[in-house]
Amino acid sequence: MIAVLRNGVTKDQMDNLITWLRSQNIDVHISQGAYQTVLGLIGDTTKIDIDLLSGLDIVESVMRVTEPFKSANRKFHPDDTVVTVGEGENAVKIGGGNFAIIAGPCSVESEEQIITVAKAVKASGATLLRGGAFKPRTSPYDFQGLRAEGLELLTKAKEATGLPIVTEIMNADHIPLFENVDLIQVGARNMQNFELLKELGRQKKPILLKRGLAATIKELLMSAEYIMAGGNENVILCERGIRSYDTYTRNVLDLSAIPVLRGLTHLPIIVDPSHATGVAKLVKPMAMAATAAGADGLIIEVHNDPKNALCDGAQSLTPEQFDDVSKRVSEIRKILAK
Amino acid sequence: MIAVLRNGVTKDQMDNLITWLRSQNIDVHISQGAYQTVLGLIGDTTKIDIDLLSGLDIVESVMRVTEPFKSANRKFHPDDTVVTVGEGENAVKIGGGNFAIIAGPCSVESEEQIITVAKAVKASGATLLRGGAFKPRTSPYDFQGLRAEGLELLTKAKEATGLPIVTEIMNADHIPLFENVDLIQVGARNMQNFELLKELGRQKKPILLKRGLAATIKELLMSAEYIMAGGNENVILCERGIRSYDTYTRNVLDLSAIPVLRGLTHLPIIVDPSHATGVAKLVKPMAMAATAAGADGLIIEVHNDPKNALCDGAQSLTPEQFDDVSKRVSEIRKILAK
Amino acid sequence: MIAVLRNGVTKDQMDNLITWLRSQNIDVHISQGAYQTVLGLIGDTTKIDIDLLSGLDIVESVMRVTEPFKSANRKFHPDDTVVTVGEGENAVKIGGGNFAIIAGPCSVESEEQIITVAKAVKASGATLLRGGAFKPRTSPYDFQGLRAEGLELLTKAKEATGLPIVTEIMNADHIPLFENVDLIQVGARNMQNFELLKELGRQKKPILLKRGLAATIKELLMSAEYIMAGGNENVILCERGIRSYDTYTRNVLDLSAIPVLRGLTHLPIIVDPSHATGVAKLVKPMAMAATAAGADGLIIEVHNDPKNALCDGAQSLTPEQFDDVSKRVSEIRKILAK
Amino acid sequence: MIAVLRNGVTKDQMDNLITWLRSQNIDVHISQGAYQTVLGLIGDTTKIDIDLLSGLDIVESVMRVTEPFKSANRKFHPDDTVVTVGEGENAVKIGGGNFAIIAGPCSVESEEQIITVAKAVKASGATLLRGGAFKPRTSPYDFQGLRAEGLELLTKAKEATGLPIVTEIMNADHIPLFENVDLIQVGARNMQNFELLKELGRQKKPILLKRGLAATIKELLMSAEYIMAGGNENVILCERGIRSYDTYTRNVLDLSAIPVLRGLTHLPIIVDPSHATGVAKLVKPMAMAATAAGADGLIIEVHNDPKNALCDGAQSLTPEQFDDVSKRVSEIRKILAK
Repeated sequence: MIAVLRNGVTKDQMDNLITWLRSQNIDVHISQGAYQTVLGLIGDTTKIDIDLLSGLDIVESVMRVTEPFKSANRKFHPDDTVVTVGEGENAVKIGGGNFAIIAGPCSVESEEQIITVAKAVKASGATLLRGGAFKPRTSPYDFQGLRAEGLELLTKAKEATGLPIVTEIMNADHIPLFENVDLIQVGARNMQNFELLKELGRQKKPILLKRGLAATIKELLMSAEYIMAGGNENVILCERGIRSYDTYTRNVLDLSAIPVLRGLTHLPIIVDPSHATGVAKLVKPMAMAATAAGADGLIIEVHNDPKNALCDGAQSLTPEQFDDVSKRVSEIRKILAK
Repeated sequence: MIAVLRNGVTKDQMDNLITWLRSQNIDVHISQGAYQTVLGLIGDTTKIDIDLLSGLDIVESVMRVTEPFKSANRKFHPDDTVVTVGEGENAVKIGGGNFAIIAGPCSVESEEQIITVAKAVKASGATLLRGGAFKPRTSPYDFQGLRAEGLELLTKAKEATGLPIVTEIMNADHIPLFENVDLIQVGARNMQNFELLKELGRQKKPILLKRGLAATIKELLMSAEYIMAGGNENVILCERGIRSYDTYTRNVLDLSAIPVLRGLTHLPIIVDPSHATGVAKLVKPMAMAATAAGADGLIIEVHNDPKNALCDGAQSLTPEQFDDVSKRVSEIRKILAK
Repeated sequence: MIAVLRNGVTKDQMDNLITWLRSQNIDVHISQGAYQTVLGLIGDTTKIDIDLLSGLDIVESVMRVTEPFKSANRKFHPDDTVVTVGEGENAVKIGGGNFAIIAGPCSVESEEQIITVAKAVKASGATLLRGGAFKPRTSPYDFQGLRAEGLELLTKAKEATGLPIVTEIMNADHIPLFENVDLIQVGARNMQNFELLKELGRQKKPILLKRGLAATIKELLMSAEYIMAGGNENVILCERGIRSYDTYTRNVLDLSAIPVLRGLTHLPIIVDPSHATGVAKLVKPMAMAATAAGADGLIIEVHNDPKNALCDGAQSLTPEQFDDVSKRVSEIRKILAK
Repeated sequence: MIAVLRNGVTKDQMDNLITWLRSQNIDVHISQGAYQTVLGLIGDTTKIDIDLLSGLDIVESVMRVTEPFKSANRKFHPDDTVVTVGEGENAVKIGGGNFAIIAGPCSVESEEQIITVAKAVKASGATLLRGGAFKPRTSPYDFQGLRAEGLELLTKAKEATGLPIVTEIMNADHIPLFENVDLIQVGARNMQNFELLKELGRQKKPILLKRGLAATIKELLMSAEYIMAGGNENVILCERGIRSYDTYTRNVLDLSAIPVLRGLTHLPIIVDPSHATGVAKLVKPMAMAATAAGADGLIIEVHNDPKNALCDGAQSLTPEQFDDVSKRVSEIRKILAK
């Protein structure tokens, strides 16, 4: 970590700062320039709060030389992590060259619906089933999901198809209900719900961590670090679009996050083109683009019944559309594998 | 709600949509233009999910005519809400012309520290004491607060000074620990932790709801609506800066949110210039500006001991600086009261 | 265009507004709801300034039903526009299924440099040569380009290789100097330099219009409209990344803009992965992703001499790296063509 | 300037970089850490392009220790610059404790209109008159201003009232037409029209430079530097709102830019609450807030005839409303002067 001091700092002020830093087991190298003094901080600087340091009157700016994340950092773990989801013959690997498509409806609505969709997406190449049971909704007056009943219906769909299941958790108290869930999703709105992350760090199941609405790449990695610091190293990251000023799409899908994250971390990275855009017809080009950019997988919304599609129609594909996307993605994967 | 249909929609497609809308108890007025057909949706459209509707293939765009928030809406509740925090002679009113300054340290560190700061800020005009016990930190390796012990120390400071106390909650399971807390704060990162909001809606204590890092004004009001829909109408909104692309300040303080919110809602609105800017020397001008823009109050970080200020020094004021800010703010309040 | 009036509007206020609208040759349909009155504006509403209308005291919100762009609008011009750049046997078509790669150095530095790069990129599949002569630099102290001399060197490279040339204009007074330039580029910082756009609308050469640093898709189309309204319909749009809050990449490449623009306009759409990311190693995945998302072409920075790469090294590829990108892009094009 | 090298950089690579830096007259100090090597660059680093350096494969990150702006930098010019606008007894000083209000209509429409407004705003305390002659409009089909005729009408209003006049330039070729203009405005969309800035640097008239739609504070200062580097040091900066994701206001007024700029530069800083918000009723609270935050002046839109207000009604105040704002601002100025 490097700290640049302001012009006109007195020796006393500088000595006070250095004394404090050394009391934190940080070694300090001093470099005097014509205009400014630069301090090189050496040691375990992950404990130094960069905001606090840079806010001091005598400090002009601060730059981290080493990233504040350790467990998620590729520097200390050069090989790609491969996360295994599910058990036995239906187990699915994600990362390290293993590509997976997670598909299913926005919300679980009925046993017939979820099993129908599960069979359809399996036939088209999906290897995991998603479906919302606990739904985070902006409005308290919108449908909040079937909750515990939705989890039971997902379990039935798993039994019927063998597909491991993925669904979102919104409250650590619900963990016991997630016994049959194979991959627990943390939604964008809870990416910095640190109490939830800590509790998930104590679990053994893999976690799908979605990037927050306006989270930086570093913040996403620090949230993964919360889970990993608790002992659960099976974290899959998910880019799902970030907030921007344009209104044609719900969010801006940040596909450059894929190669950037690839350089910074060993964790698998998947992309959600459905939530990112909010528009069904944009899902196909964005799914193909995400694959071409090197994603380890996709999570795509597919609804069952186009005739009654109103409740999950906005961004969901029909099974036929999903089949087409899956084929196209597969072709792009073949090019990348060459 | 108004829905504009795409060119080339067939009569069948339109009839299907209208039939579905009517099944939701929505009356539909049809207006045929030269290029487009526009549907006027009349009835309780708060139940219609605007994203789903606008995502339909046959729909070009959708616009809400009435806001989706009810309890927080000034239209249905024209008079300013006045929230009372604390009990007895030390109770403090916020809103409807009542201005309050909440002050105190970033983190509660010790009994001596919190009581010293409490006495100092009270002497300078603060009427509520803040102090972090449960701390949301980006990194799992940063200090997470004294937690339950911090709440006990805050209670001692309340006993010593009479100041009602304000502190952040991060987990609904902790509610029993907040028995002596007078105003429960929901931080920016939990603004859309809907499970927490629902639980707080069942409490009787007033809630201080901070705007999320990149939340729209409508999303802030919808989160207030979650609390109010549960029966707790004592919500105070807090603007604390939004994420932007510049790096000179931590966030951009959106002061126009004050008059915009004033028009949309009857709830009190306060401003946090300390977290918004992250820089102590910007707190004074921004506190004055927020007051001039019509805020109902301020929440300001004040640390106790400038000599050991490193741990909460970045954005905190000394008691002397706070005294100066408080005087300036008071002078601006006098002009506004004319 | 639809205007929703505020609650409590008087009949006089509404009549004044309607009288004024009719004086602008706009027909008005009035629809009274329980809570609100909605006006449907019919006629040539492109002349109505939406900001002015929505800012009126009596107006709550306004929504355009038809887009304010005409010449660029796919509704009135359903077939893809194919822009031809250059003349004779070296002419290159872009759009409507014709894909083109523009490549070359950030700045033209010398005759040897530009001819060397031109030959290299031609051998690897580029069909147009780019090179900066007039350089927009944030700092007045940075190298501003070889200017007129740079244009002469580009012409020599065209003569040597047959590649049509593309370079940026910063001032309408320079148009006479651009006689030999085949495709005139308007940079992001000048996307709303309306005086320049108007002058380019009077030219016959095709224009490459880059999206502004924080321009909406609609603003990009309105700037194209400025050129087209002057009579020059040969406009190619270029997505080059938009400003966001993260700092790992210079901008966020908004690839969903490709399918969104495809639906709104008939103009060709290309992507600049070099400026979007600012990092050479991100160019390949983003070039592949842009192609998979359906772009009509790419514009990529390639430098000549990796040994002296410092002056255009940040985001530029070596000829070898470019050759690899070109091959990968070509493979993805084949899948899309199926 | 400090450059942190990546892990695994070879001695050859590092030596090549250092040799190149020294060839640019930059002295290099090398500091080897446990994980990383840090280079301290000493000398005139304003000529080093930070983007290029940080984009090199062997460089992990770069941080400027000294700002890249010189003429605008408070470090080299500690005293506030006071800009004098106009001549003789009507000359107005801005900056260094001198506060000025610029007011007038969005567009100059007629001699009667501009003189009426000029007299009204003068009576209410404005000391400069604004009025648009050349209008930057998003759409080519919107009114583009009276252009040269508008400048003549402004001159008549100056003769009638003595108020110095302020109006926007969009093209360097128009400079001869601006002979009677006292303060030449560069609009947000032209903040990085570097050819225009260079030409204005050769003029003697003061320049009002508005912040771009998504410009950083540093970019604003670098654009001022373009003008100052040419010899014209009379630059006034103007904060006018930045692009964000919310839609309730047109832009987000970034008032913290005032104290931030105050620390970085000696140039005067004014605020435009009319364009920032786009809503007349937000102008008063934002004008008061900007004043309380320490602005050196305001620029406010005032229209003449509320009965025909449609064409500049959205964000303009009536003369009566302006009079009220001016009085309130004056009261806040008195507090600040204490």
